[in-house]
Amino acid sequence: MALNLLKSGHKVVAYDVMDSSTEPVAEAGAEIVSSPSEVAKNAKRIITMLPNSSHVQQVYLGNNGILESIQPGSVCIDSSTIDPAVSQDVAKQSEQKSAKYLDAPVSGGVGAAQAGTLTFMVGGEKEDFDIAAKILDHVGKNVVHCGSVGTGQAAKICNNMLLGISMIGVSEAMNLGTKLGLDPKILAGIINTSSGRCWSSDTYNPVPGVLPGVPSSNNYQGGFGTALMTKDLGLAQQAASATNSLTPMGSSALQIYRMLCEKGFDQKDFSSVFQFLSEQQ
Amino acid sequence: MALNLLKSGHKVVAYDVMDSSTEPVAEAGAEIVSSPSEVAKNAKRIITMLPNSSHVQQVYLGNNGILESIQPGSVCIDSSTIDPAVSQDVAKQSEQKSAKYLDAPVSGGVGAAQAGTLTFMVGGEKEDFDIAAKILDHVGKNVVHCGSVGTGQAAKICNNMLLGISMIGVSEAMNLGTKLGLDPKILAGIINTSSGRCWSSDTYNPVPGVLPGVPSSNNYQGGFGTALMTKDLGLAQQAASATNSLTPMGSSALQIYRMLCEKGFDQKDFSSVFQFLSEQQ
Amino acid sequence: MALNLLKSGHKVVAYDVMDSSTEPVAEAGAEIVSSPSEVAKNAKRIITMLPNSSHVQQVYLGNNGILESIQPGSVCIDSSTIDPAVSQDVAKQSEQKSAKYLDAPVSGGVGAAQAGTLTFMVGGEKEDFDIAAKILDHVGKNVVHCGSVGTGQAAKICNNMLLGISMIGVSEAMNLGTKLGLDPKILAGIINTSSGRCWSSDTYNPVPGVLPGVPSSNNYQGGFGTALMTKDLGLAQQAASATNSLTPMGSSALQIYRMLCEKGFDQKDFSSVFQFLSEQQ
Amino acid sequence: MALNLLKSGHKVVAYDVMDSSTEPVAEAGAEIVSSPSEVAKNAKRIITMLPNSSHVQQVYLGNNGILESIQPGSVCIDSSTIDPAVSQDVAKQSEQKSAKYLDAPVSGGVGAAQAGTLTFMVGGEKEDFDIAAKILDHVGKNVVHCGSVGTGQAAKICNNMLLGISMIGVSEAMNLGTKLGLDPKILAGIINTSSGRCWSSDTYNPVPGVLPGVPSSNNYQGGFGTALMTKDLGLAQQAASATNSLTPMGSSALQIYRMLCEKGFDQKDFSSVFQFLSEQQ
Repeated sequence: MALNLLKSGHKVVAYDVMDSSTEPVAEAGAEIVSSPSEVAKNAKRIITMLPNSSHVQQVYLGNNGILESIQPGSVCIDSSTIDPAVSQDVAKQSEQKSAKYLDAPVSGGVGAAQAGTLTFMVGGEKEDFDIAAKILDHVGKNVVHCGSVGTGQAAKICNNMLLGISMIGVSEAMNLGTKLGLDPKILAGIINTSSGRCWSSDTYNPVPGVLPGVPSSNNYQGGFGTALMTKDLGLAQQAASATNSLTPMGSSALQIYRMLCEKGFDQKDFSSVFQFLSEQQ
Repeated sequence: MALNLLKSGHKVVAYDVMDSSTEPVAEAGAEIVSSPSEVAKNAKRIITMLPNSSHVQQVYLGNNGILESIQPGSVCIDSSTIDPAVSQDVAKQSEQKSAKYLDAPVSGGVGAAQAGTLTFMVGGEKEDFDIAAKILDHVGKNVVHCGSVGTGQAAKICNNMLLGISMIGVSEAMNLGTKLGLDPKILAGIINTSSGRCWSSDTYNPVPGVLPGVPSSNNYQGGFGTALMTKDLGLAQQAASATNSLTPMGSSALQIYRMLCEKGFDQKDFSSVFQFLSEQQ
Repeated sequence: MALNLLKSGHKVVAYDVMDSSTEPVAEAGAEIVSSPSEVAKNAKRIITMLPNSSHVQQVYLGNNGILESIQPGSVCIDSSTIDPAVSQDVAKQSEQKSAKYLDAPVSGGVGAAQAGTLTFMVGGEKEDFDIAAKILDHVGKNVVHCGSVGTGQAAKICNNMLLGISMIGVSEAMNLGTKLGLDPKILAGIINTSSGRCWSSDTYNPVPGVLPGVPSSNNYQGGFGTALMTKDLGLAQQAASATNSLTPMGSSALQIYRMLCEKGFDQKDFSSVFQFLSEQQ
Repeated sequence: MALNLLKSGHKVVAYDVMDSSTEPVAEAGAEIVSSPSEVAKNAKRIITMLPNSSHVQQVYLGNNGILESIQPGSVCIDSSTIDPAVSQDVAKQSEQKSAKYLDAPVSGGVGAAQAGTLTFMVGGEKEDFDIAAKILDHVGKNVVHCGSVGTGQAAKICNNMLLGISMIGVSEAMNLGTKLGLDPKILAGIINTSSGRCWSSDTYNPVPGVLPGVPSSNNYQGGFGTALMTKDLGLAQQAASATNSLTPMGSSALQIYRMLCEKGFDQKDFSSVFQFLSEQQ
């Protein structure tokens, strides 16, 4: 993302806990500083991308954090996938410093980040969104305004919860069909032209050999890891608890992916749930 | 189906337990007889379509049933959605009378039946399939050979199990998203262009007002009934038990749809699971 | 059971497909015959015990089956654990031959069978039950009249469904508690004197080392096998489908035990679900 | 609890946000103060009991909170049922003020609180536990040392997760059995002397009429409310997520109880899950 911003002519001031992460950015012309707070001193458009809620709290609210030295009128764009309630809290505290915070989680993975084709789901006020969109247009190809702060997270979490459910559903259907004597390609063909059609079946089929170029045809390497899917399903359950939403399938999906993590599938692509369900030991 | 066969110039001999069902067919030129056995005496291409496994057993194997008087070389096409094991058993018994039996469940509903645009998923030997396909081409627009006897049922059951899972998944995601502050149309738009995309979201969205002309926008009237979905999910679990297939989501889907049946949603479209999950009492 | 009947002075006529099974009974004085039908010719009090529903159908209704030559006034006691609907069907067909059939599944396992301390849950008319009880009192210590034919199965199935649910529940609670830093023996002590108390915790605890002399303390050898629990949970789901009963937990329990069977735990005691849930791979 | 402490000769300094709660305590001789901080100024043995984690954080760590004015050497006993991680955090912050914090959730309900027969599950160091136990012995009859701080919560949460699972399991078994033709009292009798035996069946049976004096025989009034069970199952899932523990049944139990809350059962006793599962609408 930083490289794409530099390419498009922006000045970039960067920080990461790992020097190895900032090195290629430095080589491409970015100024490297020593803390989030230093970034905020030097830039009024700030993009963050962090593993989970507690990291976001630390980077924004902690010692040497962004809010320590943020300039009035700054706009922060957080592309982490985290609890929407945390996004809303950080936005409120930013507001108290006369700065804006938008949540803008992405979908598309490492490949889309490099190619500049990420999708951004953005939560925040319309005028702040417009400012953010001008920057994000250089690193993504699809920047969607979802609503107020937190709705970017909500959209990401809901989509990924459905994705996890669908992937398990496709895996169960393909496994059952094969055991009943169907050729997996024929079954996939029928599903893909019928009411069972979904991305997990027609674009990312979990059965080895049905589609070329997907993780299932490459021993479940690459793609979207089981551990990350488990994290997103956990966020969905946290949000469901906070809003008393009934999500029986989303809850089961979390249990199943957590089981995969415990049983040695955590580093495999999330479509490996087919392998887990179908293989006998 | 019978009317479409008559229209395409076939001679039709028909039987149904309800006279009211055969009346329009008689008016259109079919000969009405008094039992399945009578049909088999008068025709060598026989199509059946019945509510469940036990009806199929009775109509083929019972008193005054088809196999009582079936002519050698006959080809039976059963378009019921039933247990694949029952299809295989009836096929075996037909074979003993030198007749062929194919399972050929349909998808598409009453509208597609009238329009002659049903999809047939056919299980049986290739040469028998070719004979059946010539007839079915007059009542459907998509006649697929799935494999040996029983695989037509298998394909239908697997697709519908996935459909039930997807519909609940979409309902949970739309419900959670709405509770988190998202506009349902915006969320549906994001899902439909992301990895959560599926037929239940982009073609048959369960949230009232998101799509025009679907049951959810018509108080869940019409469409594919909850009771029928429950039946198909039950067949899937029966098949999963017979083959020791792991279907945790399919099993939960059956429980949820059975709950809908008990709680007064049995006559509504199966997308009413959104209403069940979202409404507070 | 046969040995205990012989010991108590009964004459026994026996048949089994495996000669090795009847040998010790023959040595103890039983007459061995060559088919179920032969048994029925020679005895009016008939006890059967078979692996599953289809075996019962074959032994009673098939070629050389009991009903082929049953004598009027005979009383059949079937101690198999099967689908209650099958019990009811065999009872009806027995009635047509002026004979009585009771379902009388047992609990207690091989040890109780040898010691003559089995529990029998009996379904059938009161006067038939009284006849059966006089015989069963010699092989069991607890013979309970549950109601009409099929209720013996119903009681067994319901108890075992609850047992499967409880065992998974105890395993989850003990696993979670241990991960939260509790000593398993302290946690078991608290549960056993609180509202979580149950047989699976206080008598058959699944955590190695908590109780002496149970399968969990013997590498999950012996006891009640995972495959048998899976079978009983399957019968429960079949009965739930037939009666449209909501059993969300019973259905999940079946899925979990089926998973254990697929993942190499089928020959272990059913308390090994703790091992499955707690071990990381 | 405060009344029992006064009765046993202790001096009590009390605070509650609701004056109506402290009135009877004032009448019995307690000194009423105006904030948690005031309590801490006046007493070195402090007992708190609050609805959830955020209340505990506020009362201990917030403005006018206990830690603002706590005296060195004080011992705090928190009888709230909350997230064990929050207990551990408050303990750490108490330590920094040279005070001790123990988590000591209770079981037994309002009746046991009045009668002084509560069970306390206490987490903390042994020497602090000994100090706490001397006080708690006056308000409970069973004071158990579970281990380090947080294990009191862990024990409570694990027991109640198992309790929720058992109660649903008993409800499913009793419902299925009744639909299969069994008399509920006969079925309960069999279960209570077999391997399905548990507190939810033999002491608190959820089927009206099986046991006298329990909520199910009083239209599910009184007892332990569905909303409270839902809260505890939510804490269990939070703890399971924090420790990557597999709890498929605990997770389903939360979904089922959350459904009950949404469908109008939130104020009923938690055994009303039988009513929810068995009644047809």
